Amino acid sequence: MDVGIAGVVGRKKLLELRQREEERFAKRTARSIELDARARRHLPCGVPMGWMKGLYRTVPLFVTHGEGSRFFDADGNAYLDFNVSDLSMTMGFGSGSIAEAVSRQLERGAQFLLPSEDTIAVAEELARIAGLPFWQFTLSASGANAEVLRIARHATGRKKVVVFGGHYHGHIDETLVEKKETRSEPALLGLLPDAAAHTLVVPFNDPAALESVLREEDVALVLTEPVLTNCNLVQPLPGFLHGLREMTKRYGTLLCFDEAHTFQFAHGGLVGAWNLESDFVVLGKGLGSGISFAVYGMSEEIARIFSDNLDVDIGPPGIATGGTTYASAMAIAAAKAALFEVLTPEAYAHVAALGSRLADGLDSLFNKHALAWRAFKLGPRSGYCMAKELPRNYEEAELSLDATLIDTRRVFMANRGIWEAIVSAGPQVSFAHSEDDVDNYLNVADDFLDGIAA
Amino acid sequence: MDVGIAGVVGRKKLLELRQREEERFAKRTARSIELDARARRHLPCGVPMGWMKGLYRTVPLFVTHGEGSRFFDADGNAYLDFNVSDLSMTMGFGSGSIAEAVSRQLERGAQFLLPSEDTIAVAEELARIAGLPFWQFTLSASGANAEVLRIARHATGRKKVVVFGGHYHGHIDETLVEKKETRSEPALLGLLPDAAAHTLVVPFNDPAALESVLREEDVALVLTEPVLTNCNLVQPLPGFLHGLREMTKRYGTLLCFDEAHTFQFAHGGLVGAWNLESDFVVLGKGLGSGISFAVYGMSEEIARIFSDNLDVDIGPPGIATGGTTYASAMAIAAAKAALFEVLTPEAYAHVAALGSRLADGLDSLFNKHALAWRAFKLGPRSGYCMAKELPRNYEEAELSLDATLIDTRRVFMANRGIWEAIVSAGPQVSFAHSEDDVDNYLNVADDFLDGIAA
Repeated sequence: MDVGIAGVVGRKKLLELRQREEERFAKRTARSIELDARARRHLPCGVPMGWMKGLYRTVPLFVTHGEGSRFFDADGNAYLDFNVSDLSMTMGFGSGSIAEAVSRQLERGAQFLLPSEDTIAVAEELARIAGLPFWQFTLSASGANAEVLRIARHATGRKKVVVFGGHYHGHIDETLVEKKETRSEPALLGLLPDAAAHTLVVPFNDPAALESVLREEDVALVLTEPVLTNCNLVQPLPGFLHGLREMTKRYGTLLCFDEAHTFQFAHGGLVGAWNLESDFVVLGKGLGSGISFAVYGMSEEIARIFSDNLDVDIGPPGIATGGTTYASAMAIAAAKAALFEVLTPEAYAHVAALGSRLADGLDSLFNKHALAWRAFKLGPRSGYCMAKELPRNYEEAELSLDATLIDTRRVFMANRGIWEAIVSAGPQVSFAHSEDDVDNYLNVADDFLDGIAA
Repeated sequence: MDVGIAGVVGRKKLLELRQREEERFAKRTARSIELDARARRHLPCGVPMGWMKGLYRTVPLFVTHGEGSRFFDADGNAYLDFNVSDLSMTMGFGSGSIAEAVSRQLERGAQFLLPSEDTIAVAEELARIAGLPFWQFTLSASGANAEVLRIARHATGRKKVVVFGGHYHGHIDETLVEKKETRSEPALLGLLPDAAAHTLVVPFNDPAALESVLREEDVALVLTEPVLTNCNLVQPLPGFLHGLREMTKRYGTLLCFDEAHTFQFAHGGLVGAWNLESDFVVLGKGLGSGISFAVYGMSEEIARIFSDNLDVDIGPPGIATGGTTYASAMAIAAAKAALFEVLTPEAYAHVAALGSRLADGLDSLFNKHALAWRAFKLGPRSGYCMAKELPRNYEEAELSLDATLIDTRRVFMANRGIWEAIVSAGPQVSFAHSEDDVDNYLNVADDFLDGIAA
């Protein structure tokens, strides 16, 4: 048995397989290809948002509708979605509690720029399940992280922020940063010239490296997911997250756990499941089930600083937060239905069982195909770790991020009705998935591993 | 007749009136006050988004529902809204084309992270009515302006951006900047330390000042509304906007018209009505009717640069744009219904007629009360210009932004069923308003001017 892709076909054969599958994909998606040509006349790359093209090596599918865990394209093909729109649709496509609640709210008004009694109910439930007492609502986890950064800078009077290698916290200038040799540099084009000037990138699971940075006592905030979910899955070593908390406290740095993805891993998020303490927590995009919505929680001390420096349209300057359609009545309706009707402890237990079924199934397939690989396994999330040891940081995680292999798998599986949108995520079950969906995934994965056997 | 507030009661009497009205407001909103106390336990300042408190000097209303141009609070009071949620609900609260279209879409799936045929229809219609050929969709005008800035910096290889005094382009670090003496400085707290380093603030309607900056040939973008709408209303002097275009071209600077507000002033926005040319245009928040949605258009040349530098998850870095729930199927459904069913040339003509009725009515009231004031008048927008000459820039506009007077007016009018959310906006009619609504506003305004007569 071999690690990496040593146990599978060589790169040339892999590229041949990918090409055959891309040709097959093109034949199955003739109508999408027609629509793409029409779309390119008024949408750059044929899409209304760059990622819809940037995520794939094929023409983007043009979608007609969805139903539970599946969606359908313009050629009538069905796709079981194992990434559910980058985890923004984990409560399922189409009818259900969320659609009903939002439709009812639309009849009563989508947005008022004012609060409602339901707003309080949502905040009370968030405080109950996710630990921190005070909450603000935004349109996206990007927006929530941006506000956390601003509050942290003002609260500490410090400029710097620490993120970990392999991080992703949304399209914020100062976090779209990577480490090149010893310096932080902007990772994308067009960012503020000084975007990376105050951002430090440190390896995950390395307390000594972290301390060497925090001990300067000039870092406002450490911003991290409790588990890195954007480079496959990097889990914390025992004690790392509690040590992180202790260290941030010691050096006067604030700590934010970004649970944009991971609040779907356990009821109340991993901060609840693992009993983590922090100054901020961000819960993310899936909470609105397609309605743009995210929230952040904060400690009582931070809430006092926020309240004392409110952004008031007359008077001294406050902390820059908010936007016109943030916390709309419609978003509140979606979040209330999500929290009280869908995201129950029972639903999380069901999802965890499905996630185990998926991960254990993948492990069996790796054995069957004599691959020295291991399935990622945490709540609903699984994936392909191309080694027997789980990665401890971004560098180790990258060894399993073989783009050619993953892109070949994605188009192979798409041709057989399985969809995964994000190359660096790996399959994840959702609240809309069933055991049959998981078995369907495993059957197609089995065929794929057959197809790439050396 | 006197200009400014010279023709009305002195400041002391004004404050007494405001206090009486605030006491009356408190009596009418007992249930909101109860809910506010409950809300403060888990929401800083009792609100899920700071502005909901920062915009008012009273306890925020807790809303139950809306209907057309009106909404209702928890005490059962009705309010005719003459700012319709900072122009995000100009197609009206509650049932109607948008609510129906969005509810239908929710049954078919809110979001897929993929395009649809409707996406193309929306882009085609935008290209037809708003001049520029290529379009991208975001969640907010802030998000659209942020992406325009990034594209412009990359396209020009320049760092600087020019905005005009009195500008507002959303909560973006580098535009939340004001001029203090000769330097640009962050206008709010917590922003990136270098937020203002590359932003120049120039007076509106001052071609010489603009040229002195552009001639350095280091400015990537001039970002401006065609009419400044966030400091009452500052209209361009004849030729200023066409001169602006000519000058940006001459010095290699890109130009973006931010029509987040003003696309509601005329069919196709003011770029259409006034035949303005630019490299980018941003259309804003009202397009989604409460569903967070904005778009930006770009020239063919810019679209090519965008496409050649797409943000691809594998490969060389692209321009930082996009987000998970951008251009959701739900937002597309709302925009399609808005563009094809609600925002017709006839609807704009109706709104313009109502806007004239409002402005002419205010002018009559100013005459009746012997005030040397003048109503702002542009399409749906009116307001209180406390001089006979309209302002040409922010400094002159500020003379009509008497916060005490405006806050007194707002609470006086709220107690009589009229709502205005934004202190620096002034009343605006919407597609949901009627002649009766306008007459109702004018009657209450008449009472108010009586109440403050010297």
